[in-house]
Amino acid sequence: MSILVKNATLVSGKKSDVLIEGGKIAKIASSLSASGADKLDASGKLLIPGLINTHTHAAMTLFRGIAEDMELSDWLATIRKAEGLASGKESDIKVAVSQVRAGSLLACAEMLKSGTTCFSDMYFHMDEVAKAVDKSGIRATLSYGVVDMGDEKKRKSELSIGEKFIKDYQGKSGGRIKCGIAPHSVYLCSPELLIKSNELSEKYNAIYHIHLAETRKEVFDCLSSHKKRPAYYLDSLGVLSKRTVAAHCVWLTKEEVRLLSSKGVSSSLNPVSNMKLSGGGCAPMPEMEKSGMNISLGTDGSASNNSLSMFETMKTLGLLQKNTRWDATVAKDTAIFDAATAGGARALGINSGIIKEGALADLALLDLRAANMAPLHSAVANIVYSAHAGNVTDVIVDGALVVEGRKLLTLDEEKIVDAAQKEAEKLIP
Amino acid sequence: MSILVKNATLVSGKKSDVLIEGGKIAKIASSLSASGADKLDASGKLLIPGLINTHTHAAMTLFRGIAEDMELSDWLATIRKAEGLASGKESDIKVAVSQVRAGSLLACAEMLKSGTTCFSDMYFHMDEVAKAVDKSGIRATLSYGVVDMGDEKKRKSELSIGEKFIKDYQGKSGGRIKCGIAPHSVYLCSPELLIKSNELSEKYNAIYHIHLAETRKEVFDCLSSHKKRPAYYLDSLGVLSKRTVAAHCVWLTKEEVRLLSSKGVSSSLNPVSNMKLSGGGCAPMPEMEKSGMNISLGTDGSASNNSLSMFETMKTLGLLQKNTRWDATVAKDTAIFDAATAGGARALGINSGIIKEGALADLALLDLRAANMAPLHSAVANIVYSAHAGNVTDVIVDGALVVEGRKLLTLDEEKIVDAAQKEAEKLIP
Repeated sequence: MSILVKNATLVSGKKSDVLIEGGKIAKIASSLSASGADKLDASGKLLIPGLINTHTHAAMTLFRGIAEDMELSDWLATIRKAEGLASGKESDIKVAVSQVRAGSLLACAEMLKSGTTCFSDMYFHMDEVAKAVDKSGIRATLSYGVVDMGDEKKRKSELSIGEKFIKDYQGKSGGRIKCGIAPHSVYLCSPELLIKSNELSEKYNAIYHIHLAETRKEVFDCLSSHKKRPAYYLDSLGVLSKRTVAAHCVWLTKEEVRLLSSKGVSSSLNPVSNMKLSGGGCAPMPEMEKSGMNISLGTDGSASNNSLSMFETMKTLGLLQKNTRWDATVAKDTAIFDAATAGGARALGINSGIIKEGALADLALLDLRAANMAPLHSAVANIVYSAHAGNVTDVIVDGALVVEGRKLLTLDEEKIVDAAQKEAEKLIP
Repeated sequence: MSILVKNATLVSGKKSDVLIEGGKIAKIASSLSASGADKLDASGKLLIPGLINTHTHAAMTLFRGIAEDMELSDWLATIRKAEGLASGKESDIKVAVSQVRAGSLLACAEMLKSGTTCFSDMYFHMDEVAKAVDKSGIRATLSYGVVDMGDEKKRKSELSIGEKFIKDYQGKSGGRIKCGIAPHSVYLCSPELLIKSNELSEKYNAIYHIHLAETRKEVFDCLSSHKKRPAYYLDSLGVLSKRTVAAHCVWLTKEEVRLLSSKGVSSSLNPVSNMKLSGGGCAPMPEMEKSGMNISLGTDGSASNNSLSMFETMKTLGLLQKNTRWDATVAKDTAIFDAATAGGARALGINSGIIKEGALADLALLDLRAANMAPLHSAVANIVYSAHAGNVTDVIVDGALVVEGRKLLTLDEEKIVDAAQKEAEKLIP
């Protein structure tokens, strides 16, 4: 299948045609023609690389709005109770296959409709997430979330589930699915689990997706247990590498930023989730830029955001950085847009996030005829600060049209919404 | 004209019909029928009071994206240069009638499509703003922005323009237009102008719309010039009353909050603009709530936001309050939603912002069949934290349908976008 995108406005302001063949961007030029290709009229539309969300828990869309305006401990207790994870007993887990299925499909629908073409997920029952990815047409890096809380039996079982998932799904859905491994954090994983997870990551060249320095408590507890701040602790275990994607990275020292950068670690900044849970901080983005660290962006799950819109995350990142640093020149719009596109691709090791010949054809079109997108002085400023999910008209992933004229082609959105509502209600006492 | 809204989901979760007659909500009940009424099917849609934006500079949509990532002084210089206001000479003003017209129409289109049914504006060439309000069908409180910088001649001329505008437009467009007077701030207005403006406000029962405590510089300069913080200074001039709507209110002390509250002043919080300009603070919302002060919300102009979406403003307010206070229990979703609706109506003295019999029929419908709005555990949480402007499907103002199926009925959005682009380009050197 090939697609010829006609008369698109590029971020540079230039108009161009873009030919898509074999899942890739084959040619970018004006007045292209291709006899066998489907034509997509992009007049009055802005063509951008699809947005890449590097930290999600897709199935948690089912928890949207159930735990509002609560202290972190109450929030966590509410979510864990709904999930049935509070006791730590397998038999108490309430989130079943059917819920992960419904929540993941809902998340894929929301992401595609808001211009996100790839996400990096961490949760359990990951085969259901993979099936949702397959069906929806989105691209994803999926990582089973491993947790042992020091229990050796649990550790072995978790690693085995995590490895089986990689073996079963690596490269599936025509290459749209990549697999990773996700040791939850320094506080829910033993050093052995953190190390063994990295061995899997190395063995399969799979990303190592971990929560890092999300809260002050995490830092203090790590200092207390391991006499090291979280980044130094992970380094002492030898698990930091180019495969590491560290989510949150709020409470890092400058030295930790330099350490992570020197190891090739990518950050995934999640400003909306951090603010909503009243973390109180602001990730050191200017220091990350100065050290050359790769920066990507994530929404986190809908239990703490409560949206998967990367447009919101881009804007909130800029607002938080500028306000916290008392400096409007930090977090430039171009840097934010790069983090949401090329930075995400670098973090996940995929050839996308950029519009160039040979790159994967993961693209979104935004309506430039909408009042909120005019005038067009700066396309990047309008993307980061003016656009919303409703401006996304068409989305292409892996060379296939998955959203056309604001309609999802791969899934029945209304059915998915109904199923999600039904499954969500089962979780609430 | 009457409209019968059928099968709407209310914020309470109940389903109901709503009959609209003579510009007002006539009846709320299930299974209503009305033979002469136009039917609006609201199945799968959430009916909310239209959002009320209490601080805007509508015409400044033309400056969207022209001054990004700049220090406040550079930002201001860039905007003033584009406006031609830098020299203070009338003859240098570049923003002409045609630009205010194009920018105001663009703003009205953006606001209506994002569920905003009323706004409170401060700028110049206000008759063009009034014409845009008339044409678009939105409701507004319009205030000519008066500035004298100590010049007596300018003061008289400003007051005369401001009063003429009130006389010409008060109650026009079938009552959709109300007028106010807008002394810019304590730093651009002499005490005489602040006082004379209040005399006009009293004479015409018109709101007194002013920027207050937006930046630290404003506070320090006011302390230096008048030996009083801004709220105390305004009180010493006797200009604080129930008609006062104070925009920003970031750098207020607790005592100033109590003073403003005791005088019946309404705040208009503008978190997005404040953060984008890197003000560095956070309005004392919990203290405002404690003192019983009326709170409303504004987007500010698109030069510093760069959007007029009240959904973004609601969410950003919650995020900023929670993160700054290290307390997720502050700025509850219900309080934020109230500020964006009933609080705005109280600030502007209009009988709307609420769905009850007898209130003005200013309403919006949100699509509950969109993936990002499901599941519906809490309608208020989904409105404040999950919805975006693209979820707005239909809008009614003053009993008339102005947006239907996401299409603006009163204006040709594409023509307005083109005109805005053309006029905006004239302003950029």
